[in-house]
Amino acid sequence: MDDRELLSVICPVLGEEVCNDDCAILPQLKGIMVVSTDMLHETTDFPVGMTDWQIGWMAMAVTISDLSSMGADPRYLTLAIGLDREDRLGDIVQGAQACCQKYNVRYVGGDLDAHTELTLVSTGIGEVDDGKPVRRSGANPGDLIGVTGIHGRAIAGLQGDRKYWKDLCEPEPRVREGIAIRLAGATSMMDISDGLAISIHDLMKSSGTGCEITGSAIPSLADYPPEEALKMALFGGGDFELLFTIPSGKEGNLPTSSAIIGGVTEKQEILIDGSLLQAEGYQHHW
Amino acid sequence: MDDRELLSVICPVLGEEVCNDDCAILPQLKGIMVVSTDMLHETTDFPVGMTDWQIGWMAMAVTISDLSSMGADPRYLTLAIGLDREDRLGDIVQGAQACCQKYNVRYVGGDLDAHTELTLVSTGIGEVDDGKPVRRSGANPGDLIGVTGIHGRAIAGLQGDRKYWKDLCEPEPRVREGIAIRLAGATSMMDISDGLAISIHDLMKSSGTGCEITGSAIPSLADYPPEEALKMALFGGGDFELLFTIPSGKEGNLPTSSAIIGGVTEKQEILIDGSLLQAEGYQHHW
Repeated sequence: MDDRELLSVICPVLGEEVCNDDCAILPQLKGIMVVSTDMLHETTDFPVGMTDWQIGWMAMAVTISDLSSMGADPRYLTLAIGLDREDRLGDIVQGAQACCQKYNVRYVGGDLDAHTELTLVSTGIGEVDDGKPVRRSGANPGDLIGVTGIHGRAIAGLQGDRKYWKDLCEPEPRVREGIAIRLAGATSMMDISDGLAISIHDLMKSSGTGCEITGSAIPSLADYPPEEALKMALFGGGDFELLFTIPSGKEGNLPTSSAIIGGVTEKQEILIDGSLLQAEGYQHHW
Repeated sequence: MDDRELLSVICPVLGEEVCNDDCAILPQLKGIMVVSTDMLHETTDFPVGMTDWQIGWMAMAVTISDLSSMGADPRYLTLAIGLDREDRLGDIVQGAQACCQKYNVRYVGGDLDAHTELTLVSTGIGEVDDGKPVRRSGANPGDLIGVTGIHGRAIAGLQGDRKYWKDLCEPEPRVREGIAIRLAGATSMMDISDGLAISIHDLMKSSGTGCEITGSAIPSLADYPPEEALKMALFGGGDFELLFTIPSGKEGNLPTSSAIIGGVTEKQEILIDGSLLQAEGYQHHW
């Protein structure tokens, strides 16, 4: 097959309209646009055993999560696929489309290439209708620090706990929660796909602040010993949850799936239960 | 180095503002948005001898060309970089930024990953302020067919003709021309980076029409024998020029760098000088 024949696999999924031009044509958005792009590779990003459908899902979920981390409403996504075997294309595109449909995002196009290693790059456009995306740099001393969801699920799945395999392979970005947290008055936000501990460091560094975290306040896996569950929550990575700060007194407006785990301090030190928190998590190394 | 250290190579080029959030924050556009994404790989897309600076330039130029092919004004670009050697990053980002600056496009962010083969994916957002992007499907029988520029330069460079090496490695997308052709009243348009012959086939197929081309009307290399120059122009690929159709009578408004090379017919046959034109050009094969 060549490029043009492979398009016949994609076009019925996306709609013929999408396949017929050099660009996707999109109506303008309200307020402010936010744009993010994410590159994933087979060897570093997709655990062995993950299906192609899940790979397609994941490729879109990572970017939807980035858009959500600013409190945006994800609207449009493209997906560039560096394909190692043509028979994988159908499932990848179906999984990508399923993820977009779940979050009401339009999968508007992409690119297709032959590649020795499966490589996926999604790019997303989100809309912040009131024009005020939540940035990383807005945390103030005295703010509360919160997170969405239960932490450590992805690493549990990666370590072979079948109960959490789907959490690892089909992450569910926090779209509604991100918007609700923005509207509740969050001062800073990011997603924690690299891991909670390193993300806390990143957020505080961007804001020029420090913080004090209470380990027992972090929602973690109830079916693991508490100390192990906390380690998994802090350093595991792969949970597509949100980390944010919000002025004290506004936490009543937060979604019920979120929890307060600590407070922002002026001193630029990241403490958990009184000790320094290591900035460890998932990073590529050269 | 890890991801965070490599950012210190990118941030001074793009501006610290760009590096500090999960997404780029962009003001809304007028009219209609068009979006396109392009994936390039070292082994298939970058000729041996091309510099890293030129690779960065090329990665942005391909997407700027896609946006131009709908008559859009390119506004924002992201670049995801799958990097094989960290020392290449600086030149790639500098070349990408130089291309953006030449065309007045903002390079607003991207992603960075380790990869065995250098892989670049740019995604661009363009603006069509009157809300009427030029599509592939609008050609009508009786329209004239036109092209911008001189064809065959990239293949000449690839074949070792040093005079055309820069044309191959630093393509100049036709931004002003694309907008001018749209405003002149073009009925269909696309870029011809896969090659002129195959692009003529694609454009006519999208419009459900055929055409008759005059070989001698195609601007080709004057320093090659005419028959060879025509073959290079038709089948070489890599020239980032535009192919378009426009109603007869409106050609007076076209940019001076464009030429009329034939006319659109009702019969779905692609003829050049009375013979069938082969649909050959650059395609990936699996």
